[in-house]
Amino acid sequence: MPPATSLLKRLVVGRPFRSDRLAHELLPKRIALPIFASDPLSSVTYATQEILLILALGGVTFLHLTPWIALAVVVLLVVVVLSYRQVVQAYPSGGGSYEVASRNLGRSAGLVVAGALLVDYILTVAVSVAAGVDNIISAVPELNPYRVLINIVFVVLLTAMNLRGVRESGRTFAVPTYAFVVGVLLMIVIGLVETLVGHRPVAESAHYGIHAEQVGLSSLALVFLVLRAFSSGCTALTGAEAISNGVPAFRRPKGLNAARTMSAMGILSIVMFSGITLLALISQVKIAESACDLVGYPGDCANGAQRTVIAQIAAAVFGGDQSIGFYYLQGTAALILILAANTAFNGFPLLGSILARDRYLPRQLHTRGDRLTFSNGIILLALVAGALIYAFEGSTTKLIQLYIIGVFTSFTLCQAGMVRHWNRELRQAATAADRRRIRRARVINAFGTCFTGVVLVVVLITKFSHGAYLVVIAIPVLFVMMRSIQRHYRRVRDELEPDDSGGLLPSRVHAVVLVSTFHKPTQRALAFAKAARPDTLSAITINVDDAETRELQRIWESHGIKVPLKVLESPYREITRPVLNYIKTLSRDSPRDVVCVYIPEYVVGRWWENLLHNQSALRLKGRLLFEPGVMVVSVPWQLRSSSRRDLERAEHLPGDVRRGIL
Amino acid sequence: MPPATSLLKRLVVGRPFRSDRLAHELLPKRIALPIFASDPLSSVTYATQEILLILALGGVTFLHLTPWIALAVVVLLVVVVLSYRQVVQAYPSGGGSYEVASRNLGRSAGLVVAGALLVDYILTVAVSVAAGVDNIISAVPELNPYRVLINIVFVVLLTAMNLRGVRESGRTFAVPTYAFVVGVLLMIVIGLVETLVGHRPVAESAHYGIHAEQVGLSSLALVFLVLRAFSSGCTALTGAEAISNGVPAFRRPKGLNAARTMSAMGILSIVMFSGITLLALISQVKIAESACDLVGYPGDCANGAQRTVIAQIAAAVFGGDQSIGFYYLQGTAALILILAANTAFNGFPLLGSILARDRYLPRQLHTRGDRLTFSNGIILLALVAGALIYAFEGSTTKLIQLYIIGVFTSFTLCQAGMVRHWNRELRQAATAADRRRIRRARVINAFGTCFTGVVLVVVLITKFSHGAYLVVIAIPVLFVMMRSIQRHYRRVRDELEPDDSGGLLPSRVHAVVLVSTFHKPTQRALAFAKAARPDTLSAITINVDDAETRELQRIWESHGIKVPLKVLESPYREITRPVLNYIKTLSRDSPRDVVCVYIPEYVVGRWWENLLHNQSALRLKGRLLFEPGVMVVSVPWQLRSSSRRDLERAEHLPGDVRRGIL
Repeated sequence: MPPATSLLKRLVVGRPFRSDRLAHELLPKRIALPIFASDPLSSVTYATQEILLILALGGVTFLHLTPWIALAVVVLLVVVVLSYRQVVQAYPSGGGSYEVASRNLGRSAGLVVAGALLVDYILTVAVSVAAGVDNIISAVPELNPYRVLINIVFVVLLTAMNLRGVRESGRTFAVPTYAFVVGVLLMIVIGLVETLVGHRPVAESAHYGIHAEQVGLSSLALVFLVLRAFSSGCTALTGAEAISNGVPAFRRPKGLNAARTMSAMGILSIVMFSGITLLALISQVKIAESACDLVGYPGDCANGAQRTVIAQIAAAVFGGDQSIGFYYLQGTAALILILAANTAFNGFPLLGSILARDRYLPRQLHTRGDRLTFSNGIILLALVAGALIYAFEGSTTKLIQLYIIGVFTSFTLCQAGMVRHWNRELRQAATAADRRRIRRARVINAFGTCFTGVVLVVVLITKFSHGAYLVVIAIPVLFVMMRSIQRHYRRVRDELEPDDSGGLLPSRVHAVVLVSTFHKPTQRALAFAKAARPDTLSAITINVDDAETRELQRIWESHGIKVPLKVLESPYREITRPVLNYIKTLSRDSPRDVVCVYIPEYVVGRWWENLLHNQSALRLKGRLLFEPGVMVVSVPWQLRSSSRRDLERAEHLPGDVRRGIL
Repeated sequence: MPPATSLLKRLVVGRPFRSDRLAHELLPKRIALPIFASDPLSSVTYATQEILLILALGGVTFLHLTPWIALAVVVLLVVVVLSYRQVVQAYPSGGGSYEVASRNLGRSAGLVVAGALLVDYILTVAVSVAAGVDNIISAVPELNPYRVLINIVFVVLLTAMNLRGVRESGRTFAVPTYAFVVGVLLMIVIGLVETLVGHRPVAESAHYGIHAEQVGLSSLALVFLVLRAFSSGCTALTGAEAISNGVPAFRRPKGLNAARTMSAMGILSIVMFSGITLLALISQVKIAESACDLVGYPGDCANGAQRTVIAQIAAAVFGGDQSIGFYYLQGTAALILILAANTAFNGFPLLGSILARDRYLPRQLHTRGDRLTFSNGIILLALVAGALIYAFEGSTTKLIQLYIIGVFTSFTLCQAGMVRHWNRELRQAATAADRRRIRRARVINAFGTCFTGVVLVVVLITKFSHGAYLVVIAIPVLFVMMRSIQRHYRRVRDELEPDDSGGLLPSRVHAVVLVSTFHKPTQRALAFAKAARPDTLSAITINVDDAETRELQRIWESHGIKVPLKVLESPYREITRPVLNYIKTLSRDSPRDVVCVYIPEYVVGRWWENLLHNQSALRLKGRLLFEPGVMVVSVPWQLRSSSRRDLERAEHLPGDVRRGIL
């Protein structure tokens, strides 16, 4: 915020906010990169491995196809980065694929994108945590029997962190991300130099054979195998669109800076992915779905774990699995993966607030500060991700089968939307230079549409029976749910359309003060009720216990209270029904009368004190709201303990840092 | 309720209650017996068995001690029944042991009794469910591997039933209880007749030997073993005091009718317990903690189940484990045991409401209708009972080690209280006949105190290391908790003592209407606010979205609303903070000013609609209550869907039938 505006604001509304909570710094590129790119960069830890794993199904011979598949992934990555560079410049408001699809292809396409992204947030948590644990187990193989447990523990920790609203800063993201990038680049350079000087790194699995599951493949089956390997390699692209959701948090010129960060992310991804793949081939890493498929695997293959590909490379390059370099790389890899999982916890509220603005999700997601709503979302996200991890036994390879369908759905629809966008721009373009520029942009997006569309079809076909059908079910379910929510809001809006009858003044106001005992809160409620000068004023109490009621009447008289105290009988010690009946008798005469029920309420500071107070009042309040022509007035009395409550507690919501709230 | 009163009530307050909900019939003895005695009567299904089990530790030879131990239990039962006959007549208000101990021995003794009873409610659930499942497995031995699971399923079912508030009636209790009693009596008669005609029933385990765990017992160890067997047999007494908590539900003369029901229960218990024990000896039932201790047990003793004692007797008497009589008895035994578990779900709210009246538990337990509070209690009860069942592997024998400590604590303190009661009565007695009667009563209670006190010590010593230490920890914990709650209420009462400052009228009332959009609820809130004739009136809206705010201002003007609309800026889309700041500026000038915040609220009929509305408003309301000098007015707008809500839904709370609410 420019200083002049800030000064003006202070003059107008005083100094209401603690300034440290408000620091709304826009993000420089060097901080934005780790914040938005931890997810896409982390995927290089498993992308190569997933390609090798699938090819291994056909035996060792097919591993020579790896470079070609990796090349296809790199080309795809280039296309997607170029496409999204255009998205961030054309739609700098942060709506990303959802906004592009909605505006250009219509509401339904936008909703499909939204559903796909929601599903992918869940899978980002599951896959990233599983991969992070893979790398921890690679460094400490003794933990293998506790794989699922460790996965669940990390999900629980992430959930707790996000529920508590642990404050994130740029540094939280920057340090692990850069540490990981530096580690990987160093490993690539050292590994390649070693190779060049004739000291080729050799993976621990270099001498293994592979027991092929699929032998004597027909050419069709071969194509299918290659396509499956490619599909799995495409996980390198997950998270690529994160930057397009975060454009508003960039420094000006926002679009351009975002586009440059996008390029930097793309280049880093490509270099790291290519380097790791190259080193995997040089060091002859072997990996298979089950260790028992590896010929020459030592020990108990049924219970033993294979090291991840990057762990094997790191051990080979840095001089063994006890070297500092190995531990450094495994540590930073695990860290960036957990961080990537955390981004899903952040991305959800961000997407949620955009969907809520358009009435597809509950309105309160749009405004900040409703921690409860965020909490529900976080718990839901964690439960589903945890269930997936449990169901798929914490296996990255199995979970990856479900992944990226959502990503490519949104890629494809977004690119298609961009083509329409350029068509419209082209019609309005003034100069020939503009038209040339737009046509060039359109070519990129059109190519992107086709390419990502084909990949989507390939991914769907190759992964469907391996679990992806779950995603194919989930996306339409979310679609229908969001449509229903919107329809509900529209129906309510129509029902509430203001009209002349709405503003009619009530003819008379009857005030009723609810009394349980005579104490300060009751005194205050009576005083406040009198101050509103109602047409009639009465106090009521429910006779739950004869002796107590007589005592109350005695005190009432001895204090000389002018307001009449009516005693309502309640043979079964109920509260709600007698009050309701009394109120109905009050407003029976005229439907335009209003009954104003004053309820003295204790305000307490400790959570358990709420269990001891107010419960009956709360229940009654809830019920009174259903009566037409009734207002419910809470007259609070702050008990001393209420001052214990830290009302100024800073509210850090997940995703704040991505909105530029530091 | 007599008809005259009923008629008067109708004339005065109209016909507010659906009459079927109100039927407050007092219980005739024949219905009261099954309602209050299902718990004590059900314990005969396991009491004999527990005696045999402990004696079996010393081998077959010690089984000849069974009749003497059973006799001691019967004597104890007679003493307790006679003692409690006097309790129900002296204290007909339904407070039972808690009331007797509190009034005569002081608050602390009463609280100990309360804590002991709360613990025993939990154990009633655990033991009864476990014993019920034992009898199901006796009939269908194939279910043995799923013992713990079946136990948990029953606890969950009972919990669900009580949470939903399934309506109980006298018949719910009467049919299974009488069916069980008839079955057992029939079995005893047939078994004895068969024996007399020389056709002695022979249990399937009659020919087994027992591998004694304890051999060559010293006389001290022998005494200990016998005392342990006696302690376990005392489980026949559990639930005996239920009637003393239910006196108000009896027909007049309440005390006398309750006393007679007490006697009937005692006689039935004694006959059934003695008969079952006799038949167990006649048919030579053998039972041991583990089937592997039985010499001659066929099949896999580690995984096989032994049939319960009554199952073995029933099979022997009724002609085999495929006979109708056998299935009938096992079925009714299981049913009455599950019913007994259910009584704990009912007894808890009853005791809870009495403790709440005395401020030892949250106040709302005293009034009816707060389903939420009951729900929490039910869930807590189920969780702890379920955890105990899980920890003790659903073993009745292991769970019984924890049982009855609470019962005998309350027995002893209650009898001691009664002695004091008679001492006081004696001082006031007018005639010699009265004095004689009182002295006689005092002797019974004094003898009861000594006897139950000795049993309590025996139970404590013999069971302590077998798990009872858990109970010895739990009772003081509950004691301290209830004391703290009472202290809290007392502190609050002192803080809220009315004084002159409490009733001061506020000097000015500032009304603020919260506006999000302009629709009927807003119109109504404005009208209601105007009707209260405040000193100042303003409408405020929070600028979350510039476009929406401008649109609102336009509509505001076009409708010609006289109330000024203030726009509060909120750069981070927060709601709460800007409103709070505005309100603070209003009341800053005078501390005696009151700010009255009108919040339009939607009232919806479907639970999920609540997720879509009101959340921000609710949060704001919660926060506003912490501000001194603020009233919060909810102006409800009933959406059409709100009529869907069945507000007349009958509220059946657990324990209603025991309070005479049928």
